[in-house]
Amino acid sequence: MQTVFSVRTSGQGLYEFTHSVSSWLRDEGAADGLLTLFVRHTSCSLLIQENADPDVQVDLKAFFERLVPGSDHPSMNYLVHTYEGPDDMPAHIKASILPVSLSVPVSAGRMVLGTWQGIYLFEHRANPHQRQVAAHFLATPV
Amino acid sequence: MQTVFSVRTSGQGLYEFTHSVSSWLRDEGAADGLLTLFVRHTSCSLLIQENADPDVQVDLKAFFERLVPGSDHPSMNYLVHTYEGPDDMPAHIKASILPVSLSVPVSAGRMVLGTWQGIYLFEHRANPHQRQVAAHFLATPV
Amino acid sequence: MQTVFSVRTSGQGLYEFTHSVSSWLRDEGAADGLLTLFVRHTSCSLLIQENADPDVQVDLKAFFERLVPGSDHPSMNYLVHTYEGPDDMPAHIKASILPVSLSVPVSAGRMVLGTWQGIYLFEHRANPHQRQVAAHFLATPV
Repeated sequence: MQTVFSVRTSGQGLYEFTHSVSSWLRDEGAADGLLTLFVRHTSCSLLIQENADPDVQVDLKAFFERLVPGSDHPSMNYLVHTYEGPDDMPAHIKASILPVSLSVPVSAGRMVLGTWQGIYLFEHRANPHQRQVAAHFLATPV
Repeated sequence: MQTVFSVRTSGQGLYEFTHSVSSWLRDEGAADGLLTLFVRHTSCSLLIQENADPDVQVDLKAFFERLVPGSDHPSMNYLVHTYEGPDDMPAHIKASILPVSLSVPVSAGRMVLGTWQGIYLFEHRANPHQRQVAAHFLATPV
Repeated sequence: MQTVFSVRTSGQGLYEFTHSVSSWLRDEGAADGLLTLFVRHTSCSLLIQENADPDVQVDLKAFFERLVPGSDHPSMNYLVHTYEGPDDMPAHIKASILPVSLSVPVSAGRMVLGTWQGIYLFEHRANPHQRQVAAHFLATPV
């Protein structure tokens, strides 16, 4: 059982799509098994993080901007892949540090997420994008 | 086949639980398939790393403390999610950089870990916690 | 269905083996299912990243060298696991930050990789190595 989630982004930051995933599992009648998400891009990431206080998302974005500044920043002057804009190579770097794939067990139709865990698309590019996340569910044989 | 491993932590650092996982696979008679681990928290991580020299764990903890200092450190004064203590937002950041899920093939009842690979819960909070790691095994159909 | 890919490395950097994986899936007649890759070492990583412009690989290597310099660098003088050479403990650190396992859905015999995504072994040690990547394919029941 497979599908593709489409996530529209408008600049760097986190975009939650937990509900799309849980709705898909429910609509398909998933019971017990394994859910895998895979993002089909090299300049954005998947992330499971806290979805209670929105400040966490603000701080995550701020940390990664400081860890990997734009290629027009003096500290990044060693970068050579710069012709697609100052946010391009830093996006590839962030997409290497953060997950491209995630696996979540599913029990009785629900992902076994903790209370505060939400599923996010972490966009690393400045311009708007339409991002594709491939989803795969494999049921435990009964 | 699913279970939940409980890992008790007492401060930041790595807690190995490889043996709990391999014992569970053996007790359940797992043969060939795929093991997935998923940590149900946003302030600790899973990690597969060397389990020979304990100094590796000391150095890993030291590196991540320097990469992401407490929010009371001058270099982190841009953080806004600070009301749960100086180790809270850094814990979310480390939990973004390090794995929330891991998948390990299982062959003839054993995880195909390399000689020096152990499975750890990496605690990022200072206070003691009881951490839950969901485990899922999917057998290869025969 | 399992196999082990062997990747020969000659120093730090990225080694693509996408073709080995896709050939294996085709040769085995894989249809729909889930591919998992797992690297059996603690001083190299897996990575899915852009395979169009080789400069991206140059920049990735350069970034991680700066993020985690050798243990003979003054900024790393707190490291204690240093007896296997200045590139050893930094290799463990990089192997903690970058993926040890990857999961990719397979549809109609092909991994659902995006246009620019290639699969790499990211070597963190200076000396030549023969690296083992365990591969596991689980077919969706029909």
